[in-house]
Amino acid sequence: MARARDLAARGRYTAAPNPLVGAVVVGDGRILGEGWHVRPGEDHAEAMALKAAGTAARGATLYVTLEPCNRHRLTPGASCTELILRSGVRRVVVGHVDPNPQMRGRSVELLREAGVEVEVLNAPEFARQNEQFFGAMRTRRPFVHLKLAASLDGRIASQAGNREWLTGWPARRRVHGMRAAAGAVLVGAGTVRADDPHLGPRGIPGAPPVLRAVLDPALTTSPESRLARTAGESPVVVFSRPEADPGRRVALERAGVRVVPVAEKGGALDLRSVLLELWDRGCRGLLVEGGGRTAARFLGAGLVDKITLFYAPRLLGAEGVPMIGGLGLMSVAEAPGFRLHSVQTIGEDVMLTLYPREGDVHGDS
Amino acid sequence: MARARDLAARGRYTAAPNPLVGAVVVGDGRILGEGWHVRPGEDHAEAMALKAAGTAARGATLYVTLEPCNRHRLTPGASCTELILRSGVRRVVVGHVDPNPQMRGRSVELLREAGVEVEVLNAPEFARQNEQFFGAMRTRRPFVHLKLAASLDGRIASQAGNREWLTGWPARRRVHGMRAAAGAVLVGAGTVRADDPHLGPRGIPGAPPVLRAVLDPALTTSPESRLARTAGESPVVVFSRPEADPGRRVALERAGVRVVPVAEKGGALDLRSVLLELWDRGCRGLLVEGGGRTAARFLGAGLVDKITLFYAPRLLGAEGVPMIGGLGLMSVAEAPGFRLHSVQTIGEDVMLTLYPREGDVHGDS
Repeated sequence: MARARDLAARGRYTAAPNPLVGAVVVGDGRILGEGWHVRPGEDHAEAMALKAAGTAARGATLYVTLEPCNRHRLTPGASCTELILRSGVRRVVVGHVDPNPQMRGRSVELLREAGVEVEVLNAPEFARQNEQFFGAMRTRRPFVHLKLAASLDGRIASQAGNREWLTGWPARRRVHGMRAAAGAVLVGAGTVRADDPHLGPRGIPGAPPVLRAVLDPALTTSPESRLARTAGESPVVVFSRPEADPGRRVALERAGVRVVPVAEKGGALDLRSVLLELWDRGCRGLLVEGGGRTAARFLGAGLVDKITLFYAPRLLGAEGVPMIGGLGLMSVAEAPGFRLHSVQTIGEDVMLTLYPREGDVHGDS
Repeated sequence: MARARDLAARGRYTAAPNPLVGAVVVGDGRILGEGWHVRPGEDHAEAMALKAAGTAARGATLYVTLEPCNRHRLTPGASCTELILRSGVRRVVVGHVDPNPQMRGRSVELLREAGVEVEVLNAPEFARQNEQFFGAMRTRRPFVHLKLAASLDGRIASQAGNREWLTGWPARRRVHGMRAAAGAVLVGAGTVRADDPHLGPRGIPGAPPVLRAVLDPALTTSPESRLARTAGESPVVVFSRPEADPGRRVALERAGVRVVPVAEKGGALDLRSVLLELWDRGCRGLLVEGGGRTAARFLGAGLVDKITLFYAPRLLGAEGVPMIGGLGLMSVAEAPGFRLHSVQTIGEDVMLTLYPREGDVHGDS
């Protein structure tokens, strides 16, 4: 099963919007076939593994990290459930049921009705491996992963407008992997003005282009920005107020940027509308990379599903730019609270991974 | 040698201003005697171990974490070097030479001249165990340990004036141990006004009273504060401008607080004078516990020897009180940089331990 999970991980930059799935066919104590889901439109993991095993699959055991699809889901040719039944596999071990409400356990039932022995583990490690897919299925919006890199005292730059690296290259490399895994990246317009970032994943072999998004109510993003200049390489979407300057809009669109007007709510772009626009473009994950005000807006709206924080071993002092903008709290009791998932050192930096506490900010109301 | 180091650690709250020392006498593969330095004026570790071993020490090996004293240092009765020579010990293994400039290797020479085989390890673990003593010997001022507890975004309270716990009790318990090990604690007057802290170590068995100090140029500390009200339990020293209000001074002194006028430098109390005043009161360690402005002053003066940061898994946002005040930096390149020594989770919180980079802020000029 660990092998199946490792195989599933091979699809981490390409499988979206589908989940990561790995499969292993085992008979007589030997591996007869292996598979993983590479990308939408190509074979599912089970199909790849069963093809590799061929007729040897008869009577064997199939280990698969996620519940196989059935005819309710789009697949090239037969569904995985049908392929399993045809293969003559005697036993199937499933890492986790499919969280999709139309699916949840349906294929397990179909297999059992057809006489196949099915064991369902529902182990957290398989949910965790597909946290983006599971989260998106549950909330019907992209899984929002907030990533920030700051000094030990929570500052992202020494002064407003300074463009500076804080963390070392091992941490930055991690961020490139996160971008590729999310499939979409979002920043605020202030970050574009201050840092002029590219936001694409670099140095990740096999990573497809990611969608790069900017929250930019007044369309201040320049058609000369790196984002606009590279809009031909991978899509750039700028979310603006409906009444933003039409001249700026045309200039950006001429550069290849897609400008999407979004309704306002409380004097700012409605983040839920932004997420649904991204969903409709196929995004199931979104890496929010700041700046502080954008981070505060997602946090304040209870729309953050995961946080990764990198701390560089420096102190910048109170004149530095805050990593999180104002949250309007009256006391610590009101502060968004998180559960620390892991702590690692990455080069000279520290990386913390956190999830919202159940019933805390993770409300989706 | 590991046993000797463990023994040395037993003195961590009581040995100051002396170093921590542990000693083990080993002969025929058996432990013949053990000792550690409990407190000034009592037996040194070597004396305790050799007494326990008695005549069995003849021909044995003495393991001792720090170079033994000789007649140049104050000891009850004979120096440890003399005791070793009298004991007939054949071989001495020394964890680290004494960093005291008048000592460094002198006892090792004396022992060798007298025919004792001496092995000197100078292993970093023994220097680390006595970092406070070693640091104080090197700089001739108390070893300054800066400790701060903050939210993940570097805020020590949700709003100015709020008195709030951020970290959980396991982290706070660690702080009590740090206070006892340092022997002296310092905060700014703003922290006294906001939090009205006690600053003493609680729940640390055997911990002697610590000196509690406040940087309070204008003497705003109230004679009704917890510090002043508990000045009879353990000493409270308030550092003020020489021209601070005499009425306030008298009120504090009546409460048992020691008010010490200190010269100003650049419009603020001269921290070097503060440290020398503490040195003269026997302090070899000082735990600086904030607030943000006090932390920034010590950092800005290059007077921080160690930093421990506790992060509670919460976000407080930009209206929160900064953990480090203004440092007046123009760029990240000017920011004080540190070497991450360790990362731990303590209850639900994260604890980072850092040391100044060599040649970075750790200048002592």
